[in-house]
Amino acid sequence: MAAAQANAADVVVVGAGFAGLTTARELVAKGRSVIVLEARDRVGGRVLVQPIGDGQVVDVGGQWTGPGQDRILALAKAVGVESFPTYGAESQHVEYRSGELVTYSGPMPDTDPALLTEFVGAIQRLDEMAAEITTESPWTAPHAREWDAQTFQSWMDANLTSDGSKAFMRTVIEAVYAVEPHDLSLLYMLFYARAGGGILNLMGTEGGAQQDRFDGGAQLVALRVAEELGERVRLSAPVRRISQDTNGVRVEGDGFSYQGQRAIVTVPPALAGRIEYRPAMPALRDQLTQRTPMGSVIKVNAVYDEPFWRAEGMSGRAVSDTGPVKFTFDNSPRGGAPGVLVGFIEGGDARRYSSATEAERRQAVLGCFERYFGPRAAKPREYIERDWSAEEYSRGGYGAVFPAGTLVSCGAALREPVDRIHWAGTETATAFIGYMDGAVRSGERAAAEVLALLN
Amino acid sequence: MAAAQANAADVVVVGAGFAGLTTARELVAKGRSVIVLEARDRVGGRVLVQPIGDGQVVDVGGQWTGPGQDRILALAKAVGVESFPTYGAESQHVEYRSGELVTYSGPMPDTDPALLTEFVGAIQRLDEMAAEITTESPWTAPHAREWDAQTFQSWMDANLTSDGSKAFMRTVIEAVYAVEPHDLSLLYMLFYARAGGGILNLMGTEGGAQQDRFDGGAQLVALRVAEELGERVRLSAPVRRISQDTNGVRVEGDGFSYQGQRAIVTVPPALAGRIEYRPAMPALRDQLTQRTPMGSVIKVNAVYDEPFWRAEGMSGRAVSDTGPVKFTFDNSPRGGAPGVLVGFIEGGDARRYSSATEAERRQAVLGCFERYFGPRAAKPREYIERDWSAEEYSRGGYGAVFPAGTLVSCGAALREPVDRIHWAGTETATAFIGYMDGAVRSGERAAAEVLALLN
Repeated sequence: MAAAQANAADVVVVGAGFAGLTTARELVAKGRSVIVLEARDRVGGRVLVQPIGDGQVVDVGGQWTGPGQDRILALAKAVGVESFPTYGAESQHVEYRSGELVTYSGPMPDTDPALLTEFVGAIQRLDEMAAEITTESPWTAPHAREWDAQTFQSWMDANLTSDGSKAFMRTVIEAVYAVEPHDLSLLYMLFYARAGGGILNLMGTEGGAQQDRFDGGAQLVALRVAEELGERVRLSAPVRRISQDTNGVRVEGDGFSYQGQRAIVTVPPALAGRIEYRPAMPALRDQLTQRTPMGSVIKVNAVYDEPFWRAEGMSGRAVSDTGPVKFTFDNSPRGGAPGVLVGFIEGGDARRYSSATEAERRQAVLGCFERYFGPRAAKPREYIERDWSAEEYSRGGYGAVFPAGTLVSCGAALREPVDRIHWAGTETATAFIGYMDGAVRSGERAAAEVLALLN
Repeated sequence: MAAAQANAADVVVVGAGFAGLTTARELVAKGRSVIVLEARDRVGGRVLVQPIGDGQVVDVGGQWTGPGQDRILALAKAVGVESFPTYGAESQHVEYRSGELVTYSGPMPDTDPALLTEFVGAIQRLDEMAAEITTESPWTAPHAREWDAQTFQSWMDANLTSDGSKAFMRTVIEAVYAVEPHDLSLLYMLFYARAGGGILNLMGTEGGAQQDRFDGGAQLVALRVAEELGERVRLSAPVRRISQDTNGVRVEGDGFSYQGQRAIVTVPPALAGRIEYRPAMPALRDQLTQRTPMGSVIKVNAVYDEPFWRAEGMSGRAVSDTGPVKFTFDNSPRGGAPGVLVGFIEGGDARRYSSATEAERRQAVLGCFERYFGPRAAKPREYIERDWSAEEYSRGGYGAVFPAGTLVSCGAALREPVDRIHWAGTETATAFIGYMDGAVRSGERAAAEVLALLN
């Protein structure tokens, strides 16, 4: 047991992902004492790298940033981590649809102009609808109740006519939200898209949310912030109970107990609901934590001696109507060696494949890679997979999703403090929800909220 | 600490509601040793009585039973608890709609024949659809994916034309499921209705699911079973962690640890997800626990010196389109004294009113009672309320609900044991899900499942 002094701080932060690290950094900058409790033996939350030899790493969690994501970019700059463009702006991409492989360039496959017209028209209508939403309180939008009462699938069924555009929209939802179109309400779909600058921005690479990557991996930003915070960050310390009274908070786990004036819980609502609170949470806050499941994603990286697709003028990007991997990107380190392809198994595919053996998943994934990039893609020198739903302290990704009815009935509990307990995490952001940038913004907001209340 | 012997049993059961008590009773009857760990300082789970003087009690939790609910009736009989009819079969009921109060007799308000015709037609269509569902695996029904991809609200919008029939259907969904029509998928609505003998059965009193009550209150059945089990039931023992290996299970909480060959967890999925497991749960099981929130219900009882409505030929039953209390019943003890009216605040109303003060709720509730039964109803000698969403160890009621997409993607994890951990609780039943009867059935099923595997 450390000395008594070490077990007390102005603020106790739960979780050392980007939200927790940012909020701690802001508080420390204002001269406040902070303890950050992290369940895992590492920082970064849903952001993580894995070594692939020769001092290189590959991102196996959140990794991209893009225009408008100013707060993660500012944080990265502050700790000396550079970003660089995702490879392939000038190259050809592949589309696999209805059993056929075609190449295309530019932001979207254009092999079926009628499909593209219908899809883009639908996106425009959705963006117009989203424009009436304020991201601080989407539940107050004029059509909030109507849009929250239906799944996005129901909207698709009523507003898209061709099977092709429905299939493409489904792929986009899976790629952006990591769930199926029936798993989220129309209102939540619009809210999240609006917070991220529109669905086209979230889909996009050049000029969009997949535009840039971090040199050394996105986790490097978290590692550098944690280094600044030093011993304030306590790893392998899963929080089990948070008690509060009029004097302060007590945050406990197996063999530890910390006291503070206030606590900031930065884990997603579903995980926050698994902490025991004394007194127990009010009904509405607890209902929120029951009603905001995490999306499902398995991220796979295949490492090759070189990015062989580049020599053939290919970007390494694929979009496909046939899973389990429906999206790929070139994920090679900045220097271009070794070559890395990254793919995503999402939504229903992720739920199904999480029960398969690793050998079955590997075969299915490399089957997809081979289909998109030829036989060399089937024989990586290393195969790396990360099932975020199987991770005890994430239990899914990219973030929480709001099924029909939840945003209107429980959304107000997202950021509302419960006495001395405050909430952060990318799910509580009002811009770039679900992104690293949203996490950073939420940490900044929570720090400001608490600073105004500290003795 | 008790002796080592007392800390080990063949089976450790989590939860002393009807599922846990039944499964323990079955195992003991087969000569097995059992320990039942209950978080609260009482047994009964979502079934509870409260004293109202003179040795009388009133049900403040689950209370009704009816035709086909054979297993709860058999259990009650086995422990000597009698049932008796809900008062009012021969009386007049009141309907409050669009600001007007009318009386009616029989199963449903018939003041608007066109509305009734449309409503009954819709119920018939829903029952026909439900007929293709097998309650053991609703996710395999021919239309499972289509029906699970939409909310019940979307089905209503597409299939009901008049505002009146939509409003009445909404009230029925609130009354039967304790949620709003957008909170559950069409598939789950049909599955639950089918498991309960059809929506008309679940709505009904005479010949339906509200037909009978238990003399002395429904919790008396649980108390009698607990008495049989004696020291096997350990109260005030919230389970925090369940570990398992090839040799057995260890079930732990603050200051206690029990070992067994197998564990049976009987709490609802959302609460089961708050237990820590070693090893952690597989992704699909965990996703299920994230995606099955509890309904929302506040149950209110008003106690009067006598059931004054009876003398006026009234049953004490009201159905209303105006909340917060949209349904009432006569809930007087078997002998008819004192008089008790019970009302329900459900779904969205319950979520909103859970944040109000008790004085605000009381005023709103008694305002409803007065509107339905006159000025005497506004002045009870006692007012009793129970917000089940605020109860830490229930966190809602009547039971879990499945939002769109959940039943097809995660339903298979409902009953599937995870090695030595088995699942019971009314949510895992295949008949009368959400009812005491379903809980008893699930306990019987889990006991049989485990008995076949014990050394």
